[in-house]
Amino acid sequence: MTSTSASAPKPFDVVGIGNAIVDVLVQAEESFLDDHGLSKGTMALVDESQAELLYASVGPGLETSGGSAANTLAGIAQLGGRAAFIGRVRDDQLGAIFTHDIRSVGARFETTAATTGPSTARCLILVTPDAQRTMCTYLGASVGLDPADLDLDLVRQSQMLYLEGYLWDSEEAKRAFIAAAEAARESGGQVALSLSDAFCVDRHRDSFLELVDGHVDVLFANEMEITALYKADSFEAAADRVRGRCRVAALTRSEQGSVLLAGDETIAIAPFRLGDLVDTTGAGDLYAAGFLHGYTRGESLERCGRLGSLCAGQVVTQLGPRPQASLPELVRQHLG
Amino acid sequence: MTSTSASAPKPFDVVGIGNAIVDVLVQAEESFLDDHGLSKGTMALVDESQAELLYASVGPGLETSGGSAANTLAGIAQLGGRAAFIGRVRDDQLGAIFTHDIRSVGARFETTAATTGPSTARCLILVTPDAQRTMCTYLGASVGLDPADLDLDLVRQSQMLYLEGYLWDSEEAKRAFIAAAEAARESGGQVALSLSDAFCVDRHRDSFLELVDGHVDVLFANEMEITALYKADSFEAAADRVRGRCRVAALTRSEQGSVLLAGDETIAIAPFRLGDLVDTTGAGDLYAAGFLHGYTRGESLERCGRLGSLCAGQVVTQLGPRPQASLPELVRQHLG
Repeated sequence: MTSTSASAPKPFDVVGIGNAIVDVLVQAEESFLDDHGLSKGTMALVDESQAELLYASVGPGLETSGGSAANTLAGIAQLGGRAAFIGRVRDDQLGAIFTHDIRSVGARFETTAATTGPSTARCLILVTPDAQRTMCTYLGASVGLDPADLDLDLVRQSQMLYLEGYLWDSEEAKRAFIAAAEAARESGGQVALSLSDAFCVDRHRDSFLELVDGHVDVLFANEMEITALYKADSFEAAADRVRGRCRVAALTRSEQGSVLLAGDETIAIAPFRLGDLVDTTGAGDLYAAGFLHGYTRGESLERCGRLGSLCAGQVVTQLGPRPQASLPELVRQHLG
Repeated sequence: MTSTSASAPKPFDVVGIGNAIVDVLVQAEESFLDDHGLSKGTMALVDESQAELLYASVGPGLETSGGSAANTLAGIAQLGGRAAFIGRVRDDQLGAIFTHDIRSVGARFETTAATTGPSTARCLILVTPDAQRTMCTYLGASVGLDPADLDLDLVRQSQMLYLEGYLWDSEEAKRAFIAAAEAARESGGQVALSLSDAFCVDRHRDSFLELVDGHVDVLFANEMEITALYKADSFEAAADRVRGRCRVAALTRSEQGSVLLAGDETIAIAPFRLGDLVDTTGAGDLYAAGFLHGYTRGESLERCGRLGSLCAGQVVTQLGPRPQASLPELVRQHLG
């Protein structure tokens, strides 16, 4: 197969921009969510003092690197993809953990750590007995991502730019992300976006609608997020609305699997059940990892969806959003 | 039942003194241990630069509070016992995690954090595919435990003083621990010691022999540790040597269960299999937790052993040394 492009192949498959976060996973009862006014399955932003108060009221935690796009890029690297991540930590112990973990799976991560200001972002993740996760995020140093850190050269060297919707919670950075999306496309790359969270969609609906229409090639959303985006009454109505607005919309529906919409095509992807459901943290992030890994390798959309579904199916059988099992081994076993 | 003692009941069941450590759990292949000259199943001490080098060479980690005696006291608190812990962290992010976790299960932990000097202790725990753990510990701030922190009042207010053998790696503190042991006994309490690690026994054999003979009521050791202590050829020979030197010797033998020696009595305790073996980190610590919880409640030795065996059986089915399951619930299910 000969390339029609005169340019050298791009050195990265996917570059992600996101909040650089360390997760604190804690087991909690349903009543804890009620007592603290938390809405199950969503992400709430908290300031440092709220974060401290909440932390003081929960049981023992398990700490792990997190961050939505960071989880996705770590997953792509674990799958053998050429991955890079851009996000801001502070030069503290949690920042060192985040940096170690993403580099140790082979992803490039060179964003300079902040030497002053808020500490590395933390997300308190309450895992209820039904394995659902409810998140309270203190964005800390991650909102200090400097437009200069966006490294447009790295973006141009990547086949795909991946943005998490959570980034839109950093007001001043929005324009920089649009600039990055434009740089990606101008250099022949594509842009993927995850809507991240239904409340996040509510906060930034107009901005997301504009982005999807104007800048996004691959959109990831779960049922709540896509219905929130189009204020739709049903999943089907939302799916009708998004069809044709980007190359591919990958819509995830938990235990009902996922649906890929591409042009007139609709591809249903079955979920993988690999064990007991332990913790849904990272399910969407790992779906995106599997999908994008296949997509940037030129796999069929169906196989991309199955790769996403498999990676999501693994991560929900463990505590935390970074796969503790070997993803390439899983792919060999289940997808040949 | 009337008490023969005129004194008020002691407010704490067990107070533990140990290194205050945050664990970094990493999955590793057998070859990694060979390449780095690590002996499987043991604990090696490393300095800060060795710790950093080693960390840079491993995959992503999962962070959790650890420390041998701290794990035991956290377990006792989770079981509903009145537990206190003495150990030194630094006032850094890992120190805050350690402090949160042990307090959040209801254990008292009031040792003042160091404001200068080395950072909070970290233990890099390599978990191999056979679920064995191999540990490299950077003691950091924990060696700065001040004799003034030993809080002899707290020791006198506790039925049992629990010491981890690892403490003997802090040269200057040995005398202080002996003083604590004496304070415990003078106030009518008892003293328990865990031998911790076979290499640790090799480093401090004479000191441990003296301690067992002169100060210890309840001794915890696994097969390697007790044979190392007496330079014995076999488990049976070591068991013969230790019998009668303390009230109870609780000797653990992994999948063969454990043996309690008390006077002429020998009680064999079967192991509990509660699921797949995932990670042996904390097995000995949780055995001690279950045993001491029963012991300080005046349970029969057999039930103490079964409690220990059950708690150890739970913790090996998960990653990390702090039980993520409810121990009281497990006790209800398995021991009535």
